[in-house]
Amino acid sequence: MTRDAMRWTNGFIAVDWGTTNRRAYRLDGEGRLQDEMEDACGILAVRPGEFAAAVEQIRARMRPLPLLLGGMIGSNRGWVEAPYAPCPADLGSLVQRLQWVEPDRAAIVPGVARDTAEAADVMRGEEIQIVGAAASGLMPADALVCHPGTHNKWVRVQAGAITRFRTVMTGELFNLLKGHSMLADFMREEVEPNAAFRRGVAQGLAHDDLTAELFSIRARVLLGHAPAADAAPYASGLLIGTDLRVGLRMAEGDEAIIVMGRPELTTLYAAALECAGRTARQVDGERAFIAGAITIAKELP
Amino acid sequence: MTRDAMRWTNGFIAVDWGTTNRRAYRLDGEGRLQDEMEDACGILAVRPGEFAAAVEQIRARMRPLPLLLGGMIGSNRGWVEAPYAPCPADLGSLVQRLQWVEPDRAAIVPGVARDTAEAADVMRGEEIQIVGAAASGLMPADALVCHPGTHNKWVRVQAGAITRFRTVMTGELFNLLKGHSMLADFMREEVEPNAAFRRGVAQGLAHDDLTAELFSIRARVLLGHAPAADAAPYASGLLIGTDLRVGLRMAEGDEAIIVMGRPELTTLYAAALECAGRTARQVDGERAFIAGAITIAKELP
Repeated sequence: MTRDAMRWTNGFIAVDWGTTNRRAYRLDGEGRLQDEMEDACGILAVRPGEFAAAVEQIRARMRPLPLLLGGMIGSNRGWVEAPYAPCPADLGSLVQRLQWVEPDRAAIVPGVARDTAEAADVMRGEEIQIVGAAASGLMPADALVCHPGTHNKWVRVQAGAITRFRTVMTGELFNLLKGHSMLADFMREEVEPNAAFRRGVAQGLAHDDLTAELFSIRARVLLGHAPAADAAPYASGLLIGTDLRVGLRMAEGDEAIIVMGRPELTTLYAAALECAGRTARQVDGERAFIAGAITIAKELP
Repeated sequence: MTRDAMRWTNGFIAVDWGTTNRRAYRLDGEGRLQDEMEDACGILAVRPGEFAAAVEQIRARMRPLPLLLGGMIGSNRGWVEAPYAPCPADLGSLVQRLQWVEPDRAAIVPGVARDTAEAADVMRGEEIQIVGAAASGLMPADALVCHPGTHNKWVRVQAGAITRFRTVMTGELFNLLKGHSMLADFMREEVEPNAAFRRGVAQGLAHDDLTAELFSIRARVLLGHAPAADAAPYASGLLIGTDLRVGLRMAEGDEAIIVMGRPELTTLYAAALECAGRTARQVDGERAFIAGAITIAKELP
């Protein structure tokens, strides 16, 4: 078996199975995308014991092919728990630690853990994108990756391996504020990288008083100093600027930062990195996921 | 009318009317507490237009006396909006800006705004406690007050006047995390100032990476490094330590910090201040509120 041939010669289905959504991609034996689907059947929508049926649903809607699954499907709330690969984690460690659920027919890619005296951190799903992007040339094999989502990951990649990373709760905090806080009424606008967003980024980059500045957003509206329409982009910028202040401590010199993920989020982070005087290179997360799945499939023993 | 006589010679009812609760205290003509009540009839539980009836409820349950009302009842979602008094705000400015809703029978105490080029901030309710505590000797007339609640206020008081303040969203963020976040499952324990709480305080005081450290709480539990029971006290300590790092910038020298509010919260902040090497003096917020209401009633023109 060479690196260029795939053991699954008739192709396979790669599934990015998250907490609230799942996305499946059918690839042929040459790794060409043939079909895709997305639905709201994330792991929280599947009752324990019903994952096998939820998996068969995908085969029924696509084809009865082998499956390579990544993301929260490998968590303790998913189908079968796939223990984390420790840092440094590269393509080889992910393949070696695949959790085979159906022999030769369904495997779950493990997440990655950073588990040292100083830091404890975990990821599930991003590792496929990052290792795949590095192996397939979508990003350099040595880079700092910023991977926004519900939880933003700052990931140091060396020679294609994830060597350390830090998670920042930015997306989830934004959603909590927008959904449930005293700012919720003001935060109905979509976030664009506009002037209010950039003011928030600048504040977050320069000051370590996020929890106070969040309240100022409300006070400025009440006192007539800012329109309510600024609240959502300013809060987003403030959270992302705060996020960058933590994450950029992992940057070396003036290296370009690889921003990987959904384009609506990478656009915001790239704009924020520009405010911080950094160069950002955006990589589409879906493309990286497919590249990662193919790379893993080619390495199957 | 001297400062020691009260215009409402038959006494009055002081109401601390918040977003989710209201507390009423019946005081006699000498300012002695005769009766009290508390219910869940906060301003959000009263429909616009029905405040007069909600007020009469109090009189019906206590006595048909004049009312002095403070808190969110004076907000734009309350009975009648009472415009903020600007900083510096003292007893005289609160009395002068009372919003009389029923002539000589019902007045709303205004909140206080800080409204400068550098900072915008607002409070409603804490000003009665602070001005009252300073006027009645429950705290010095010059002090830094830390007033925890849904939103913690750091308030500089000079000669009994509120000269500047900063609000930190600590309590609300804790509630959002406990109620709606990926940490919610781990945060069912009551918070005590235990070892996990103190570790959180130390982390928050020393590092400006709150939004990353919050995620580490989950990672440490998943990786078996911390029991889930530590999550709530550690998160509380982390938020309060972060809060202190912002607020203590307003401290002068090694002055004692006045911690005012509900005892279950002032205990936590006092323990955290001790971790920060500061002296804390706790003042019961309810006692301060009653003192403030009496002080204002004695100054009625």
